[in-house]
Amino acid sequence: MRLSRSFVPTLRDDPVEAEVASHRLLLRGGFIRQVAAGVYTTLPLGLRVMRKIETIVREEMERVGSAELRMPITLPAEPWKKSGRWDLYGDLMFRLRDRHDREMLLGPTQEEVVAELAAGDLPSYRDLPVSVFQVEWKYRDEFRPRFGLLRGREFLMKDAYSVDRDEDGMRESYRVMYEAYERVFDRCQLDYVIVEAEAGQIGGGVNHEFLAGAAVGEDRYVECEHGDYLSDLKAARPHPPEPADEGTEELVVMETPNTPTIEDLCALLGSEPAQTLKCIMFDAAGQTVSVLVPGDREVNEAKLEQLLFPKPVRRFEDDDFEARGYVKGYVGPQGLGDDVLVLADHAVRGGRDWITGANQSDRHVRGANVGRDFRVDRYEDLVELRDGDRCPVDGGTLRIARAIVLGHIYQLGTHYSAPLDATFVDEDGSARPYLMGSYGIGISRVMAAAVEQFHDDGGIVWPTVLAPFEVVVILANVDDEAVAAEAQRIYEGLLAIGVDACLDDRAARAGVKFADADLIGYPVQLVVGRKGLGQGQVDLKVRSTGERSSAEPSGVIERVGELLAVVNARPAVASP
Amino acid sequence: MRLSRSFVPTLRDDPVEAEVASHRLLLRGGFIRQVAAGVYTTLPLGLRVMRKIETIVREEMERVGSAELRMPITLPAEPWKKSGRWDLYGDLMFRLRDRHDREMLLGPTQEEVVAELAAGDLPSYRDLPVSVFQVEWKYRDEFRPRFGLLRGREFLMKDAYSVDRDEDGMRESYRVMYEAYERVFDRCQLDYVIVEAEAGQIGGGVNHEFLAGAAVGEDRYVECEHGDYLSDLKAARPHPPEPADEGTEELVVMETPNTPTIEDLCALLGSEPAQTLKCIMFDAAGQTVSVLVPGDREVNEAKLEQLLFPKPVRRFEDDDFEARGYVKGYVGPQGLGDDVLVLADHAVRGGRDWITGANQSDRHVRGANVGRDFRVDRYEDLVELRDGDRCPVDGGTLRIARAIVLGHIYQLGTHYSAPLDATFVDEDGSARPYLMGSYGIGISRVMAAAVEQFHDDGGIVWPTVLAPFEVVVILANVDDEAVAAEAQRIYEGLLAIGVDACLDDRAARAGVKFADADLIGYPVQLVVGRKGLGQGQVDLKVRSTGERSSAEPSGVIERVGELLAVVNARPAVASP
Repeated sequence: MRLSRSFVPTLRDDPVEAEVASHRLLLRGGFIRQVAAGVYTTLPLGLRVMRKIETIVREEMERVGSAELRMPITLPAEPWKKSGRWDLYGDLMFRLRDRHDREMLLGPTQEEVVAELAAGDLPSYRDLPVSVFQVEWKYRDEFRPRFGLLRGREFLMKDAYSVDRDEDGMRESYRVMYEAYERVFDRCQLDYVIVEAEAGQIGGGVNHEFLAGAAVGEDRYVECEHGDYLSDLKAARPHPPEPADEGTEELVVMETPNTPTIEDLCALLGSEPAQTLKCIMFDAAGQTVSVLVPGDREVNEAKLEQLLFPKPVRRFEDDDFEARGYVKGYVGPQGLGDDVLVLADHAVRGGRDWITGANQSDRHVRGANVGRDFRVDRYEDLVELRDGDRCPVDGGTLRIARAIVLGHIYQLGTHYSAPLDATFVDEDGSARPYLMGSYGIGISRVMAAAVEQFHDDGGIVWPTVLAPFEVVVILANVDDEAVAAEAQRIYEGLLAIGVDACLDDRAARAGVKFADADLIGYPVQLVVGRKGLGQGQVDLKVRSTGERSSAEPSGVIERVGELLAVVNARPAVASP
Repeated sequence: MRLSRSFVPTLRDDPVEAEVASHRLLLRGGFIRQVAAGVYTTLPLGLRVMRKIETIVREEMERVGSAELRMPITLPAEPWKKSGRWDLYGDLMFRLRDRHDREMLLGPTQEEVVAELAAGDLPSYRDLPVSVFQVEWKYRDEFRPRFGLLRGREFLMKDAYSVDRDEDGMRESYRVMYEAYERVFDRCQLDYVIVEAEAGQIGGGVNHEFLAGAAVGEDRYVECEHGDYLSDLKAARPHPPEPADEGTEELVVMETPNTPTIEDLCALLGSEPAQTLKCIMFDAAGQTVSVLVPGDREVNEAKLEQLLFPKPVRRFEDDDFEARGYVKGYVGPQGLGDDVLVLADHAVRGGRDWITGANQSDRHVRGANVGRDFRVDRYEDLVELRDGDRCPVDGGTLRIARAIVLGHIYQLGTHYSAPLDATFVDEDGSARPYLMGSYGIGISRVMAAAVEQFHDDGGIVWPTVLAPFEVVVILANVDDEAVAAEAQRIYEGLLAIGVDACLDDRAARAGVKFADADLIGYPVQLVVGRKGLGQGQVDLKVRSTGERSSAEPSGVIERVGELLAVVNARPAVASP
């Protein structure tokens, strides 16, 4: 590509709206432009990078026998009402009504479409298994779109779906995709980890996230100091504590004026938060749910939602306390009615003689013990994990790190096929729901994550496989015909041997072109200028190391080939 | 591709909902599936055909220096309000509100986005010209989506935009694109014509449509028997009549009870419709407009809208007649006030002594003549052309034909840049609006049009360049390992020499595979079966001619190469 005939509008200054490196550099380098909050035009350079990621993903999907198709973006509401996602997504879903007042949505993922497609066209067990994928734009009406392509409202995704006859088949399809994902992210040269995760709005059982470590990441995951445990923070289980001995204290009511918070209470009593027991009240579709956790821990509401799915879960509001006869800030588990579901985190087994609410204003109790003073219906994983918690595998110390979610894969089971009545006829003549899996990669987000991992003060330092071009030939003196002819010759020579090169023949000063080359991040820069040619040489620079060299014009094409081989063999170096 | 690992659900029977060949065959051949009215999933075979069309289009766009980018589908309303299209599109536009209640739309085309992009990133005349294109799905909420991909609500389009400094530049960009379009449709081997057209909702001046002749087409165009005039029907101008001599009759009022229509009137008077003068009343944003045409002609409202743009035009309703003091069914041009704009078609110059309304109920006049009895403010092209009208170039007979619009190109001028205040700084320091052009090709519609033009009773007969695969290797006996191995060897041999082949290794009867091969329309079929191999041969069939031949397994790859060369050299034969 000749840049003079393309559209590569680089910016000299940092855009004020860009808070993170990828947003800033993708704007400055002329890869993207904003059209609305979280909605971007992908400019020619950005499109080239996305296509390179897409190609890697497509090759790995085809390698595992997934067939490419393309599903629509505008979808009818009915299947989404049956699956429950019409309600579950809430404001996160773009909704519209067509001219005939029919409800529609813009697809955030397409499980419902695949379930209905299978029901129509895969009637028999003989038609299974089938795996399909697409690369298409997806829509989520984020409350606060931010960080450029990292959290957009319109984003490019590869989504694949497996349709199997039984659990074993589903697990095998999942295993094959898991390995394909490893190959995709290895080939993209990203620094990533794979963690157990929670299913969120997609639903289903076993699932894994593929995470790129990044300080700006909005996802948090947990890793053991010994490397034997990795989990998404929301899905992480700390090591359960040793069960405590029987309690020894009597239950005593204390006057504790103005202590609705744990902090106030501990200050008054001179106690540690870990000695107190929080009794947090929730509503789950009319059912009152009480969650017990030690006073120094927080409830992981994502886990609670998962546990009570498909009931929608919300914390009590002031009205709920009043209407159901609880004293806000002073609730304790003693005497909760049979109509209340009492859940406790495993950590509650590790304590005794708890300080907790007395169910009266400005009063608490001490010496509360399970069994004697209150009941627990079920123990579950319900606390948020903290930095320094113990590893569930080996008891080592856990560390929380930040990351960007690149991909997420799910064993869905019959989560969609059952409510949508998507069934096939099995060998014995019975109708059974398909066992499905779904597998997503955020293509546009991979692009942004790569920039987060690979940049320096001068700009982006693309891994060669993702760079918009492997080599830029910089024509330093546009007005000199002999120099221009030589640059053109070298550029065409590179194309002829299969190097993905571009020619920067724009009518700009050489200094601007050098800065743009660093900013855009071509792995190899080649400068053809009057001065150099006068000395019988062209100049080369490797972007990632800054190494400079020169070569005779006659040998430069071969030299570029050698440099690229070296650059490609070297693992990409992450930004500090 | 091995069909056993893909997703090619062919149907034995014609789907009842499919009224036209392309809809029926694309459903039956497993190319598409409906998700909602006018909204389809593109299955693997359909996607392959679309990609082939896309590749041809992309190559021709890049050849003329257009740079590929990708614009969003969800767009903010503001620029569309400035351009006027927010109102102009009416119900045809998909609209939504995001969670913050901001108005958005789904892009039907993206002129506003390009104008704003230019304004942000092409500040100087030195940055011009620029040409960009994308291949992306487009949205139109059709009142009655029908005919499968021919009139969908979600459809794949290549849209290109040129941004120039002046009129000459715009015209040159347009010329280059016009030629690129000819190459695209020539390469697709479609039977097409290029006609002058009218600008419709896109707006602007000079524009051309690229039309594929098809009996099911919803567009009508006009051609002269001598081949020297082609025009979209709405844009067509019939040869103006010779001006008539001065009128000779006196103006006489006649009693004509119950004659609000021309038909009734002529029956009563024994006159010809051509002797009567229709005076049709319109409202254009509050302005009363009277359009005069001979009684045997219809007003072409598209032309009237174009003429009065940007004012919205509508015919008088009952209330308008009453409120403005006109007698519905009996309006004549005599005595129309100065506040009324009186337009007449050129055909009115060819008549005299008109019979027309008397502006009183149940009364007409005869002997009405322009000048003496009524005035005409402007003569314009305002009638719908009819089969048999005379050619404006040579007076030959015009014929109306049906066609599918494949592409439409427009010289937009400053139609978008002026209202959006999208300007650059010219050499003299002044701010000037960009001169734009826009250029669309309906990729998914090209696919359907190709099926309309190329099919027979057995199914689709793709031109090789558009076929999902050039060759199908049919494995006739799946359960015979030796036969399967030979089919596999031939399939891989074809891939190795660059033939786009697939292997039909599905667990189906041979007869089903033969029928599917005809239905899907691979240009060359190759059958590997036990019986044939026993006689030392494989069987070949050319889809378009039905020619059958056989070859020894050792020489079959070479033979396929020869057959493809012959098939490709032969022009595609249109369906009867």
